[in-house]
Amino acid sequence: MKLSEIGEFGFIERFAHRFEDLLAPNAMGIGDDCAIIPAGDDHDLVLTTDMLVEDIHFIRDKISPLDLGHKALAVNLSDVAAMGARPVGSFLSIAIPHGIDVEYLDQLMEGYHQLSERYQLPLMGGDTTRSPHKLVLNISVVGRVAKGTAKLRSAAQEGDVVAVTGMLGDSAAGLHALINNLSANPESSYLIEKHVRPHPHIEQGLWLGRQRSVHAMMDVSDGIASDMKHILKASGLGAGIELSQLPLSDQLKAFSAQHQLNAFELATSGGEDYCLLLTVEADSFQETAASYKEALGADLYAIGFITSDQQLKWTKDHQSIAGGLKDGFNHFL
Amino acid sequence: MKLSEIGEFGFIERFAHRFEDLLAPNAMGIGDDCAIIPAGDDHDLVLTTDMLVEDIHFIRDKISPLDLGHKALAVNLSDVAAMGARPVGSFLSIAIPHGIDVEYLDQLMEGYHQLSERYQLPLMGGDTTRSPHKLVLNISVVGRVAKGTAKLRSAAQEGDVVAVTGMLGDSAAGLHALINNLSANPESSYLIEKHVRPHPHIEQGLWLGRQRSVHAMMDVSDGIASDMKHILKASGLGAGIELSQLPLSDQLKAFSAQHQLNAFELATSGGEDYCLLLTVEADSFQETAASYKEALGADLYAIGFITSDQQLKWTKDHQSIAGGLKDGFNHFL
Repeated sequence: MKLSEIGEFGFIERFAHRFEDLLAPNAMGIGDDCAIIPAGDDHDLVLTTDMLVEDIHFIRDKISPLDLGHKALAVNLSDVAAMGARPVGSFLSIAIPHGIDVEYLDQLMEGYHQLSERYQLPLMGGDTTRSPHKLVLNISVVGRVAKGTAKLRSAAQEGDVVAVTGMLGDSAAGLHALINNLSANPESSYLIEKHVRPHPHIEQGLWLGRQRSVHAMMDVSDGIASDMKHILKASGLGAGIELSQLPLSDQLKAFSAQHQLNAFELATSGGEDYCLLLTVEADSFQETAASYKEALGADLYAIGFITSDQQLKWTKDHQSIAGGLKDGFNHFL
Repeated sequence: MKLSEIGEFGFIERFAHRFEDLLAPNAMGIGDDCAIIPAGDDHDLVLTTDMLVEDIHFIRDKISPLDLGHKALAVNLSDVAAMGARPVGSFLSIAIPHGIDVEYLDQLMEGYHQLSERYQLPLMGGDTTRSPHKLVLNISVVGRVAKGTAKLRSAAQEGDVVAVTGMLGDSAAGLHALINNLSANPESSYLIEKHVRPHPHIEQGLWLGRQRSVHAMMDVSDGIASDMKHILKASGLGAGIELSQLPLSDQLKAFSAQHQLNAFELATSGGEDYCLLLTVEADSFQETAASYKEALGADLYAIGFITSDQQLKWTKDHQSIAGGLKDGFNHFL
């Protein structure tokens, strides 16, 4: 049987259950942004790992080694942020093909170090090896969180407000600009920067992680259309998302209009935004958002609400989109 | 500059020091078998990661997926054993090229699960992605050890006995048999089994980790000629190793004689033995070895001693080998 017939999640389902019996009490394994390992009376450690493969996750001609080093670490930090945890150490494995020289690697490590320094995050280990063809990076990040307080995908509750911590779709538009060599104007430059140098929402995650009103949390890596389903499946619930409430940058709107792209499609299905997607107790949302703004100088964007019907429904201008999300893309913004 | 001009360790030295300032107190980063992350009042967590790339670390035609799944985990468990730690969770990233079907992956995960079950070790997370050409696995293992008791490479002391916990050279001979299709006799089968299904010395590491008489410890992955230098560099000391004391299996001796191979060369420079290499307080060695035998039913093999002169010297039948180790290979066993 070909792997394409069952997909990544189908493959994982074939073995994940066999390891569940081996989990220690209070530990959590496969299925959230990070695993949880109990570590002493006060705190838990969380751990995430991501593999980036040349020509699958990045094209070497389209991203500088400085940006690649930054981004490879950033996407893992984003998973730690999603648990409400503080990163404490990273691990980097790298398989290096012929044709990559020491100067390229120095730049890669410079980008990795710049982001590490920002969070006082030591690179604590790794592995270096040759590769027959492609550059492959695998990064693991360990984080620390107060015991039992990690935010899980499974914690959404009926009636919760669904919110995000940042603009959606910019990264996907930047990727479009990069692939099609559309980098000659200010919008493209802005959007490409969002794609190649995403900023993990660590401070946001730490603040949100301390709020009891925040229930479920994860990071936006595949696009909210896909990511939202993980929260709903884990929580056994549904949601309604209103397209007109999605936070879209002016640059995304202008770029989409120029290039006849659908901004809603980029914002829901593009992915790699690396902001946070969360659900908040409805009664507390206004107060939480106001405190968040005071603390971080940024907005929490409400985009919908959690329902009991185990379905993800989309509305546009509060009209239901009968044929599902793709019908919402029929009209350009 | 080409990477080959500076090598793996030269590359690591270019950036490792830049991250040292970021390490938390009592944490340990790059440079031992595992990193150490303090975790509560009673214990530390240790973490290791290894990347295995097709055609660099394994040839897909030469190892079954069942064995590959076993071995990929085993080599990481060996690093945890080297700290005297108990493994508590593993993480697997896998990049899958076209041409690998679900049945292959099921067998790989079967081998991984069999070894996991033996140590009650949950697979707690990972990443699954496509690969343009080659199969790539990256495994991280977390272990737990009583606070401050992890065994380090830097802890050797002058006068210590140098010892190993298993036969040397079998795996390298098995690799030779595999590559040259020499699998038709009992010796080859035995040696190939040692190469494709190494058994990490977890119980040995846990027992040795509890002994105050055991100073430095690491696992034998590159061969003792190379691995010993890591202990000596980290400890600022030297050693004398006696070739005639190296534990060699009867199968290795017979196979080497049949195929005109030098058993000493395989035992010192072949690598992938995945037993433990340690230094033991000289006055306590006999007692430690006797207790070890009683507890584990196995031998600790003394192969030399630690000296103060910061050099690694080899003897054969207690005669010094003037030209260094390679001169010791001139006579077949």
